[in-house]
Amino acid sequence: MKILIAGLGLIGGSFALALRDRGIADEILGVEKSDENAAEALRLGLADRIVTLEEGVPQADLVVLATPVDTIPLMAIKALNHVTDRQVVMDMGSIKAELCEVISMHARRGRFVAAHPMWGTEYSGPRAAQHGAFTGRNAVLCEAERSDADALATVERIFRTLDVPVVYMGAEEHDLHAAYVSHISHVTSFALALTVLEKEREERHIFDLAGGGFESTVRLAKSAAATWVPILLRNKYNVLDVLREHIHQLQIMRRMIERDDAEGLTGAFEKANSIQRIIH
Amino acid sequence: MKILIAGLGLIGGSFALALRDRGIADEILGVEKSDENAAEALRLGLADRIVTLEEGVPQADLVVLATPVDTIPLMAIKALNHVTDRQVVMDMGSIKAELCEVISMHARRGRFVAAHPMWGTEYSGPRAAQHGAFTGRNAVLCEAERSDADALATVERIFRTLDVPVVYMGAEEHDLHAAYVSHISHVTSFALALTVLEKEREERHIFDLAGGGFESTVRLAKSAAATWVPILLRNKYNVLDVLREHIHQLQIMRRMIERDDAEGLTGAFEKANSIQRIIH
Repeated sequence: MKILIAGLGLIGGSFALALRDRGIADEILGVEKSDENAAEALRLGLADRIVTLEEGVPQADLVVLATPVDTIPLMAIKALNHVTDRQVVMDMGSIKAELCEVISMHARRGRFVAAHPMWGTEYSGPRAAQHGAFTGRNAVLCEAERSDADALATVERIFRTLDVPVVYMGAEEHDLHAAYVSHISHVTSFALALTVLEKEREERHIFDLAGGGFESTVRLAKSAAATWVPILLRNKYNVLDVLREHIHQLQIMRRMIERDDAEGLTGAFEKANSIQRIIH
Repeated sequence: MKILIAGLGLIGGSFALALRDRGIADEILGVEKSDENAAEALRLGLADRIVTLEEGVPQADLVVLATPVDTIPLMAIKALNHVTDRQVVMDMGSIKAELCEVISMHARRGRFVAAHPMWGTEYSGPRAAQHGAFTGRNAVLCEAERSDADALATVERIFRTLDVPVVYMGAEEHDLHAAYVSHISHVTSFALALTVLEKEREERHIFDLAGGGFESTVRLAKSAAATWVPILLRNKYNVLDVLREHIHQLQIMRRMIERDDAEGLTGAFEKANSIQRIIH
């Protein structure tokens, strides 16, 4: 299979490695805006050649869009404008409602599969690409009923080969879930990092002691603004809803601490403990 | 060296394993309030015998207090009441100001070393004890100038043998730092867990997709209320200060998202990225 990947960073680059490792890709063409990333991606073997989207689309059996989410809808249209009914276009973006709306009336809508494999790290760029990244995680396919049966089957077969179970959802439903299972954690980590950095200006060396718990809670604050600003703004209303509830929960805890309400805190923390059902 | 450890849970149990692994302890006596934990600790080899504090203190070269922080100050007094000037008492608690104040006028204050090795996990009880837990982390010693030179040297030698670098601080300073590098992360995780659990009541299975980023941000919400309620309440003013600033940062982000302020968010996230200097 000849595969074109637009965006050879964390997600696209890791997908390239997975496609090669599982023998799915015979040749990988890459689209990269930045010359530096293009050179790095070639050096790391994430692509065999760097091309433009216009050059690459006619040559590829599968076109994969793995750029920042604010660029995906327009690229999706441009790719669909040039594919035949034997080619497939998919994306790997973290939000789906806007994308699915933009492509909804396109004459070749059926060639598109809207996909979101649930994996990521706080690092970005080609050097963040990892082998085996998606294995064992779920992938969400949105509005799968709008994709042609053969296009859908192609993408499902790829995920099956990568040991990535597929889950089906509406685009709105996906974006709500993503706000809860991913986007809010990033907002929280960024805010926590700013909280402690603010303090550090007054107290030098305060963080020589930072250890395991702090590191894991704040690690997403290393994530790239170029990735996360578009995600949060394009999933604005879901993110604001979660954020409002999260601030509310923090305010309740603040009041319980102020009032020395040990019983209230104990009840809240024991309730929070049931998060064990959800995470591992 | 014969060592008495009061509290053979995550911290005391891991310390017991470290003391054995490095050949520091010839015999370990354990104090455990719960029969179940006592049996488990013996089974796991965390102690050779279970005794009461009263029975154990006269026999031990070193008494280690590793119980929840609300119980440490009184135990410290009781232990100091019965030690000679050849014995040493130390604690491993996460807050220090109250403890140091309570023991400040004790006739045997010099036999006490107030210590806080900066390590922990979200698990509790004897089965949470780990080999090699403290290695490579720092330990804070508070008001070291109030400890007798030989008592201080004993504790310093133990940490050196465990490859735990020692840092010296005032008790108030320690509690402020601990609020920033540990306590706030717990509050944040508990609140985030409650936020998503609240949503889950409406939307079944919303969290089938929960992945890496979410898991690490929320994992501290598995922590025991019995450990964390006393820590937060006894470090109340520092925790409230950090919490106030953290809520403020979240509110700023909320406003920027509401206003589609991509530039403001980018600036904030890029600033947050410098947390890389602090964590690894």
